[in-house]
Amino acid sequence: MTAASGFSFNVTASDGAARTGIIQTPRGEIQTPAFMPVGTAGTVKAMLPGTVRELGADIVLGNTYHLMLRPGAERVARLGGLHKFMNWPHPILTDSGGYQVMSLSQLRKINEQGVMFRSHIDGSQHLLSPERSIEIQLLLGSDIIMVLDECTPFPASFEQAENSMLLSMRWAERSKAAFENAGSAEKGHALFGIVQGGVYPELRERSSRALCDIGFDGYAIGGLAVGEGQESMFATVARTAPHLPQDRPRYLMGVGKPSDIVGAVLRGVDMFDCVLPTRSGRTGQAFTSEGVLNMRNACHAEDERPLDMSLECPASRDYSRAYLHHLVKSKEILGSMLLTWHNLAYYQNLMRQIAAAVRAGRMQAFAESFLAFA
Amino acid sequence: MTAASGFSFNVTASDGAARTGIIQTPRGEIQTPAFMPVGTAGTVKAMLPGTVRELGADIVLGNTYHLMLRPGAERVARLGGLHKFMNWPHPILTDSGGYQVMSLSQLRKINEQGVMFRSHIDGSQHLLSPERSIEIQLLLGSDIIMVLDECTPFPASFEQAENSMLLSMRWAERSKAAFENAGSAEKGHALFGIVQGGVYPELRERSSRALCDIGFDGYAIGGLAVGEGQESMFATVARTAPHLPQDRPRYLMGVGKPSDIVGAVLRGVDMFDCVLPTRSGRTGQAFTSEGVLNMRNACHAEDERPLDMSLECPASRDYSRAYLHHLVKSKEILGSMLLTWHNLAYYQNLMRQIAAAVRAGRMQAFAESFLAFA
Repeated sequence: MTAASGFSFNVTASDGAARTGIIQTPRGEIQTPAFMPVGTAGTVKAMLPGTVRELGADIVLGNTYHLMLRPGAERVARLGGLHKFMNWPHPILTDSGGYQVMSLSQLRKINEQGVMFRSHIDGSQHLLSPERSIEIQLLLGSDIIMVLDECTPFPASFEQAENSMLLSMRWAERSKAAFENAGSAEKGHALFGIVQGGVYPELRERSSRALCDIGFDGYAIGGLAVGEGQESMFATVARTAPHLPQDRPRYLMGVGKPSDIVGAVLRGVDMFDCVLPTRSGRTGQAFTSEGVLNMRNACHAEDERPLDMSLECPASRDYSRAYLHHLVKSKEILGSMLLTWHNLAYYQNLMRQIAAAVRAGRMQAFAESFLAFA
Repeated sequence: MTAASGFSFNVTASDGAARTGIIQTPRGEIQTPAFMPVGTAGTVKAMLPGTVRELGADIVLGNTYHLMLRPGAERVARLGGLHKFMNWPHPILTDSGGYQVMSLSQLRKINEQGVMFRSHIDGSQHLLSPERSIEIQLLLGSDIIMVLDECTPFPASFEQAENSMLLSMRWAERSKAAFENAGSAEKGHALFGIVQGGVYPELRERSSRALCDIGFDGYAIGGLAVGEGQESMFATVARTAPHLPQDRPRYLMGVGKPSDIVGAVLRGVDMFDCVLPTRSGRTGQAFTSEGVLNMRNACHAEDERPLDMSLECPASRDYSRAYLHHLVKSKEILGSMLLTWHNLAYYQNLMRQIAAAVRAGRMQAFAESFLAFA
């Protein structure tokens, strides 16, 4: 394949299957392992973009499904692209829209061509095909573009998972062709393929090989964190990652809890995205070294301690649990702001801890102690 | 009266009835004319306290009604007071709770003793008397405490307004006694009286004299901005302010629109509070030099201009109107955050413009051009 212009990945340290690295993009570098905050509709919810950056995020994720419906990809393009629109000049990865089409839209109908669906916002009808997904992501100006795939539901029989995976591989080929026809690599965009195959190692291996034959700038593992459980997810990652090129970033989509991330890095994953820190922030949950705290709980009502003095984040240090409890109970926007901020600080700090463990050659021990506690 | 320890007011410039000044408090100084952002339930909604401060606010307002119900004044006191609770180390003025009791609570019953009411949150029964209001505000640790009054409804007959005003004056006397009995002045708290009397100049004058006889650290004009209209409000302020001491701050409660503030400073008012910039921010309204913009309006959908490049506020400069339109339409929290931030920047900038006009001896001209446009 034509390598994306200005896009590269270099492993800087490794420890077993785990590694640290740097993804170079025309819009700046991404330290891996990387957690990508989710910026669904052009905003990491309840966060200023500058604050997201200060926490250490090198890249955020944008949702093609949400953005194609509102404000619309063509409108974003007329306004100068997603980076300018949302005031985030650093790298952006966009998903293909496939996952949200299946989970959020109405009257969706999937066939070889793509997915026909009605918007959950206004009922308008849209076709999302591999070609249209690439077109939308290019209109948005995404730095890392994902192929359209079908996220195989769980549970699925071997035959269901195989047929679904094969459809995704045909779509991956069409996505690659559409990407190349638009001259996207030369314009600095990168394209990632997505491995499917449910929890069946044989299918995951076949899918990985099919994608490698097509050739991508990076490889995602899709269709996990859909109910199969952590053990099964780890087993699937462990049986998939070895079939992906060492010199390309690996991205575990939609994952996950802190312990999921630790266990997946241990098995060779470099990139993650998840709504958990942001969504939990809006429902009163706080990630801490003591576990997840539900700030609605009355036990916090007179607790003067901050969430975590060890984090260099004002939301973690400058407000008491009692105050956060009050804000959550009172449904104050500031409660969502502070808890989201804190949770993202917790996640970005976790990524730095993981990277340090890999560099120190003690990732296995770090993972064991982390997972024993979690 | 015993002057509050560490509390003073000095006029630094005057131009007709308009003036600039400095209120000294043990927690820092307040430049006047001052706009106090409303921090209803221990938070200026959708704003970080540090950001409120950076915009130039020297003082915020806390609502006794909201805080007494949740989290409760005694709890706030156990947690070290409202300043520590909400991470705002600068001056705080608290209202008496009377206004919200009448507008928000259920089954309220007013008599000479005070107001018996049921909480709008959980139906619990409470008595708010002049003495209890002072006690609550002292528990919160308020720097400027307001007497309990009855906000006379509009319209009210002369007789209704007179009886209501006389009740407020008896309550003002009880408030002062409760404040003194607690040794509050020595602890650095200040107490403001509130002039009532509807739109009747004679009643406003009698109320002003009654309060001056009791003696307060500052004097508020209450019972306006309740439907009487700007002209009538200005007339009432103009007929009230001359009866208040020159050497004490004057505070026009719950006011108002930018033009209301300009016109009231012209007539001798020093302090203001209003939910307008914050509440409007949450409903998609932006205050600008072009007037109030409704960001939901489709005319903004592809407008690349920021709200106001002349304001030194990231929310006003770094985001396009198109993006703000998208956030408001998508009900994104960031929309409330950015518009509230911008609106408070607009208000604080307006206060600086007014102060500059007073110092330059051109307040009349400033007000005329401002009100002609508004």
